[in-house]
Amino acid sequence: MTLHDIGEKRLLLWLGKYFPGMERGVIVSNTHDAAVVRVSGNVAIKTDTMVITKSIPGITPEHIGYKAGVAVLSDFAAIGATPKYATLSISAPRKMTFSDFRLVCSGVRRSLARANVLVVGGDLSEASDLSVSISLIGKGSQRSMTRSGSKPGDLIAVSRPFGLEPYGLKVLAERLPRGPLEREAVRRFLFPKPELTYGKLLSTLDFVHACTDSSDGLLISIDNLLNRSLDASLEHLPAAGALLKSGMDKETVASLVSSGGEEYVLVFSYDQRRDSELVRALRKVGRRRIVVGRFVNGRGIVRDAARKGKPVDIRGWRQFES
Amino acid sequence: MTLHDIGEKRLLLWLGKYFPGMERGVIVSNTHDAAVVRVSGNVAIKTDTMVITKSIPGITPEHIGYKAGVAVLSDFAAIGATPKYATLSISAPRKMTFSDFRLVCSGVRRSLARANVLVVGGDLSEASDLSVSISLIGKGSQRSMTRSGSKPGDLIAVSRPFGLEPYGLKVLAERLPRGPLEREAVRRFLFPKPELTYGKLLSTLDFVHACTDSSDGLLISIDNLLNRSLDASLEHLPAAGALLKSGMDKETVASLVSSGGEEYVLVFSYDQRRDSELVRALRKVGRRRIVVGRFVNGRGIVRDAARKGKPVDIRGWRQFES
Repeated sequence: MTLHDIGEKRLLLWLGKYFPGMERGVIVSNTHDAAVVRVSGNVAIKTDTMVITKSIPGITPEHIGYKAGVAVLSDFAAIGATPKYATLSISAPRKMTFSDFRLVCSGVRRSLARANVLVVGGDLSEASDLSVSISLIGKGSQRSMTRSGSKPGDLIAVSRPFGLEPYGLKVLAERLPRGPLEREAVRRFLFPKPELTYGKLLSTLDFVHACTDSSDGLLISIDNLLNRSLDASLEHLPAAGALLKSGMDKETVASLVSSGGEEYVLVFSYDQRRDSELVRALRKVGRRRIVVGRFVNGRGIVRDAARKGKPVDIRGWRQFES
Repeated sequence: MTLHDIGEKRLLLWLGKYFPGMERGVIVSNTHDAAVVRVSGNVAIKTDTMVITKSIPGITPEHIGYKAGVAVLSDFAAIGATPKYATLSISAPRKMTFSDFRLVCSGVRRSLARANVLVVGGDLSEASDLSVSISLIGKGSQRSMTRSGSKPGDLIAVSRPFGLEPYGLKVLAERLPRGPLEREAVRRFLFPKPELTYGKLLSTLDFVHACTDSSDGLLISIDNLLNRSLDASLEHLPAAGALLKSGMDKETVASLVSSGGEEYVLVFSYDQRRDSELVRALRKVGRRRIVVGRFVNGRGIVRDAARKGKPVDIRGWRQFES
């Protein structure tokens, strides 16, 4: 049965039941023209759209829905906000099966439910590609982190190692044979974790100066934290241990770690004098920080400390380019 | 110059300048991972996505952007909410020219600026079709209107006449010769007006029981206000005077008015005993209501009063079907 067979009206009725959305704080929900919810204090808002222009074996509609949810949750993590409600806008070809459509919704529901987010509205459109757009609103933290605010001397750190997630994508796209490393990498790629708790903790520490999430790769994330009077000195690639132990050649590992993307790790800067304070605060929630470099006076360039400060070629995922 | 030539990073920088978004109530704006804004009281939220799967002569990218803005503003009008901030998500083919892309943005900016809405975030994706998705947040009214709540005996009214807007689409799609009527119809189709003031006024009147906006046509809108124990008796088609005077055959006019869509008119129900009170309240803001029928006990059917209550064939725009 296709979306064309079922038609918009019945799909919307089905969606209204699938995402009930009438719970705490919801005043008007998703079977009406717009939703009304209660949010106290500052309101955080973000939209993220995932468009599927080509299919990759092993990536099901459920994974697509799941990852679309994680992508926008991860943006909230980067500013330290608490997500509460979402609207879901799905565009799909009319010949898409209802069973695939339901899988997309199931993926969205699974990822948003992990963060206790209620879907309170949305819409459906016909399109050539499958596209899942999620808008999140929630509570801004007391002190919202942004991409700007880094200072010369700040350390640059990440919330967990890089590289496995893009390797998972490579395994799927190139149909590589799967050992334990490949299976783990694929799992990480298909079900990435947003760093909501980590981000909220960082936002309580006034010596954390800037933060972003790394969906487009480590180097692009560091570049996003730069301004015209700062350079970043990259001193350490935070490669996942499993990759280092795998016997994979060094260059491939470096490329996955620096430019692979898909990790949804937090990349942030903070006052180097408060490092031990940060480590203690993170230890309390069972986490750590991996220092990858530092900001210095400069003019907006990422430099490789191991190569005498040579500018690094910023690669990674960019829309319209890759 | 195409989007591919420019690349995502430069497009996002351009967007950040085009939609500055750092004004009243904005704490974190659109060059960061998510935005943070101040909204007091209940928060209204709505997403609407417009996907362009085929091009129609005379509809420019600017019109598409403009209409995408109106569509979501109109949803806010239907619940009586006040829009404040928006996120804008654009998906487009990489071969789209920057000049067309800028026109889309200019249309969005024009329609949102009319309602004093600030764009505070969004994202870009590559896709086969042009698609403009706008999420709006704002202040819910004291008493949010919904689609449910109509009672037997309620009058059904609309905020202005129907039919010109869909005729404008027909003129463009079928390249009809243009007299004054056609020019006016095209103008109305390309630059529809959301009923924000009208909707806000209705939300202050406790005898208005339900409300929706009519983007998909009059009959579908009335159908959206029904429930299983109500029928709608349609007594009058609210045709635009210019259509009636045009000499167009009656059936074409009736079809445009009842099922054409594209009007963004409010369709609402209210206690018939308070009709004169409604008329007075509307007169103060220079507006009127056009009564089109009434709700009676029933089982969810729209009936034609002129044909002894025969059920009406509900036509109009439905995604995946038309």
